[in-house]
Amino acid sequence: MQKKIYLAGPDVFLANAREILGQKADLTRAAGFIPLCPGDLEVPPRDTKKGLGLAISAINEGMMREADAVIANLTPFRGLAADVGTSFELGFMCALDKVVYGYTNFATDHFQRCADYYGGTLVKSDDGRTRGPDGLSIEDFDMADNLMLDGGIESRGGVFVVGNAPQDALYTDLDAFRECLRLVSLRYAS
Amino acid sequence: MQKKIYLAGPDVFLANAREILGQKADLTRAAGFIPLCPGDLEVPPRDTKKGLGLAISAINEGMMREADAVIANLTPFRGLAADVGTSFELGFMCALDKVVYGYTNFATDHFQRCADYYGGTLVKSDDGRTRGPDGLSIEDFDMADNLMLDGGIESRGGVFVVGNAPQDALYTDLDAFRECLRLVSLRYAS
Repeated sequence: MQKKIYLAGPDVFLANAREILGQKADLTRAAGFIPLCPGDLEVPPRDTKKGLGLAISAINEGMMREADAVIANLTPFRGLAADVGTSFELGFMCALDKVVYGYTNFATDHFQRCADYYGGTLVKSDDGRTRGPDGLSIEDFDMADNLMLDGGIESRGGVFVVGNAPQDALYTDLDAFRECLRLVSLRYAS
Repeated sequence: MQKKIYLAGPDVFLANAREILGQKADLTRAAGFIPLCPGDLEVPPRDTKKGLGLAISAINEGMMREADAVIANLTPFRGLAADVGTSFELGFMCALDKVVYGYTNFATDHFQRCADYYGGTLVKSDDGRTRGPDGLSIEDFDMADNLMLDGGIESRGGVFVVGNAPQDALYTDLDAFRECLRLVSLRYAS
């Protein structure tokens, strides 16, 4: 019985979303799996904008429940952290105890990305935490992103693959995605 | 039987995290519920940074499973979207079909925040979508954040409360949180 993998990520927002998701679906099939892609590109007509958004949300939740596994593209999106929709979906799949893998195409880890965000002006507070000039503490756990994301993946035997794509291929480079596919294949083979 | 509410949010990163989470816990108890707060502030010793992060992740997942409901602080955090850890937790609770409510203290909706992020230089592409100059499409669904977040809450009968706190009280104003508590109370009373 072929396993189904939900392909989560902000890929749906790309100008060439269909091309990239098509490539990811092809690679997934070539690895022996059935790809399930977010419903954003196949949008059912609705009377209101919100109705449309709710319909896509329901489609995606349904696909996630149907899937056996997820490969989440957690590359920082419009800022210094993963896409929040993808983070929601990763949490959703973790709660259902699915097979969860993720990747980022940006090699710099969470702590350093935050340090860069603050221009390096960090302070140590009395409680031993590192904080930005706005007082907000910065997680310092040798993790690629927020500890719930890394923790959710690692505690279930998954891997958060850290790639290092050129800046102009941050959302299109598929090396880290391929590595996730390879690891999921090994996981199901064992 | 008193219901347990998990208090998700980036509040744990505040310089006065204990004070704010203490206030939220007090309000939750005053509303007749048992508050469960993220484990970030009660950190068990571990040998490595990553081991510590994984331990906190496990504590938080355990509390979420124990909780009956979540009130998620989805105020934009270090950028234009909700905190990714909180987004993960919201997805986690949605998958478990818990009672889910959320709030933001920032009144500007997702579409306008993205427009502001791009300095207003938006384009319409051939597929009818609005995009930033980087080609990334912008969700336009009259929603406070990514459609998975709004959709996850609304489809379960919850409410994504949109507050409007002063900039200097973005993470400390509790009006929208109180409104969530009021709505959860009504939900359980009905």
